[in-house]
Amino acid sequence: MSRKRLADDHCSVARALNDVGDWWSLLLVKEAMVGTRRFVDFQQNLGIARNILCDRLARLVDNGVLSKRDVGEHGVRYEYRLTDKGRDLFAVVIALRQWSDRWNGAGDTPTLVDRAQGRPVPPVTVHSADGRALSLREVFYRAEGDTYGADDDSEVG
Amino acid sequence: MSRKRLADDHCSVARALNDVGDWWSLLLVKEAMVGTRRFVDFQQNLGIARNILCDRLARLVDNGVLSKRDVGEHGVRYEYRLTDKGRDLFAVVIALRQWSDRWNGAGDTPTLVDRAQGRPVPPVTVHSADGRALSLREVFYRAEGDTYGADDDSEVG
Repeated sequence: MSRKRLADDHCSVARALNDVGDWWSLLLVKEAMVGTRRFVDFQQNLGIARNILCDRLARLVDNGVLSKRDVGEHGVRYEYRLTDKGRDLFAVVIALRQWSDRWNGAGDTPTLVDRAQGRPVPPVTVHSADGRALSLREVFYRAEGDTYGADDDSEVG
Repeated sequence: MSRKRLADDHCSVARALNDVGDWWSLLLVKEAMVGTRRFVDFQQNLGIARNILCDRLARLVDNGVLSKRDVGEHGVRYEYRLTDKGRDLFAVVIALRQWSDRWNGAGDTPTLVDRAQGRPVPPVTVHSADGRALSLREVFYRAEGDTYGADDDSEVG
């Protein structure tokens, strides 16, 4: 009944969600990935209220997803940049974006393109160690001395 | 200043976030992926309040991520199952989980294993059409007659 389970050590997904914070926070990460660095630009590009933006940026800095630097040469001017941890959310953001395009229709959304070749980036998928694409049914969670997840007899989904 | 931009047609990530709803919703999807189907089991496994669970399950059904079926042979008993759209969040959930394990420490969290080979599933990454792993700096967004995203001169992050 409590929210404690959200931080449960056994659930990495819950811990990830705690880390990133909320949807606004993931949108801030996505904005940072396309080069946005300044408070006013986050505010303008996302149409987010000033107090919410303040709070979410601070939380992302606290959790090591963004860093805050004073880059002003004449006076104080802060920039927010992705840390290595923040930059490492790349696959999450791209997978989410591609999922949305698949199911809501890509419409006229811009195409993510490989800079070197100019070709569209294929869907992000889960792969086995030898490169086979894996579906939900082809994996399970193995704990030391314990197995959970969908077992062979149960159809997942 | 409004939340309208969250549903902006040009931002697939925002639309995805609207679709999934909030963190609780993504945790419900993750639970469904390991075989949870019944209201009481979602409630017990996630420690989520009944009213929040009701609301989030209904929203996921509305958005086509879960389906709700009466499977009771003698009386009404509902099950929630992932639709194709919900099942397709697999890469998102796994990528988020792996990110958390990398940055918060995997600790004693169970390992995601390839059922056929029993080997751990490698990190989900963004790849080019010819199979090269791509970083944030190696991609850009291309719109028809328009280009945005990090340009060559700006260091992203």
